[in-house]
Formats: sequence, C-alpha cells, structure tokens
Amino acid sequence: MTVEQTLPAPASAACCTPLTAEPLDLAEAQDFARILKALADPTRLRLVSLVAAHEGNEACACDLIDPVGLGQPTVSHHLKILVDASVLHREKRGIWSYYSLAADTLERIAAFLSPA
Amino acid sequence: MTVEQTLPAPASAACCTPLTAEPLDLAEAQDFARILKALADPTRLRLVSLVAAHEGNEACACDLIDPVGLGQPTVSHHLKILVDASVLHREKRGIWSYYSLAADTLERIAAFLSPA
Repeated sequence: MTVEQTLPAPASAACCTPLTAEPLDLAEAQDFARILKALADPTRLRLVSLVAAHEGNEACACDLIDPVGLGQPTVSHHLKILVDASVLHREKRGIWSYYSLAADTLERIAAFLSPA
Repeated sequence: MTVEQTLPAPASAACCTPLTAEPLDLAEAQDFARILKALADPTRLRLVSLVAAHEGNEACACDLIDPVGLGQPTVSHHLKILVDASVLHREKRGIWSYYSLAADTLERIAAFLSPA
C-alpha cells in the first residue's frame, strides 16, 4: 500500500500550493485539443509554415504542393483538416483555392502556451 | 481531367507568390508535431494549465489529481507523456513528484504559432 494509493484527498484539501490563475475548464480544453490535434502532424505544420512564409500570410494551393513533396490529393486532405479546425481560412478564386492563416485561432493557442 | 490534375508544376515554377520567411524543415516539423501530439488532449491541457496556475508554475502531483477528476494512475500516465515530450519537468522530493512548466519548449511552440 503506497501513500499515493491511500491519499484521502477531499476536494477542499486537494491543493497544497495556491492557484494563482484560472486553469482551463473542460470545454476550453476540448476546444484547444481539437485545434492542437489538427496541428500535430509534420506535413500540416509545414503547410501552416509555408502559408505563413508567403507574402500576406496567404498562399495558393498551387504554391503548397511541391514544397511538401506529396501528391495534390494528400495535400488537399491535410489542408481540409486545417480549415475544419479553423487554423487556416480558404477562399476560392478562379480555379485555385487560396489559404490564409486564421490568426485569431493561432493567437489563442500561442497565448495559452506562453508561460506566465 | 481537371486543371489541378494536369498541373505540370516543375519545382522552379512551384511558387507564384514569394516566400518572405523560412518555412519549417522536416526535422523541425517532426519535433513540433511530437510536442503538439502530447499537448493535444483535454486532460493533458488541463494538467498543463493547472501547473501554470500554481505559484511558481510548479505543482505537486497531489495538487493535480482531484481537479481533473481522474484516478491517480491515469493522471500519472498523462503526466509521463507530458514529461517525455519535454512539456513538463518532473522533480522527485520525498514521496511526491513536483511538476513545473518546461518554459523553453512552450515558448518555441508559441513563437511558431504567433502569426507574423
């Protein structure tokens, strides 16, 4: 029987060091996890960084296929996941889709990850 | 036959808008993806936010079990994933482990996600 197993831990005595800020509630945590899951892939991170590296933080799909070294259907699939998670915005112009950073989403995540 | 399918895309003509910054290379992208994968879970995000909310950005394991509403083995499992991904540091003192934020890791991710 270890001390950890026998910890009585009534809710009122759970914290022995004071909380100085508000931790994430479950709904916020689920929302951030959904966005981070979309980002947690090397190809998708490279696509986001390629969009960010283009003038005006916007790139045509035609700019993104060659640099990641994958076929157009695979790149489209990854871009869709990023759009669905509100990491990128998509705008159709003529025959091509243009992708831009969803700055508000990325700022929320960056602000959460910036240590106090 | 669509225009996208017939895109010739020689490497030299791949980009129609200029790159203004350096995109992530594959090794960096794999490293970031590994860290983001560890973060991309609601319970682990709440654990990180609980550590961040404690005085000195450090919390005893005993502070973390009750707030997330899960058993001690499950919380330990999630904490191990965060330590393995260098999101949290662990220090053993007496019978408890103390967890602190790995500020350098979180800053690198936040800097990448901060739109230009």
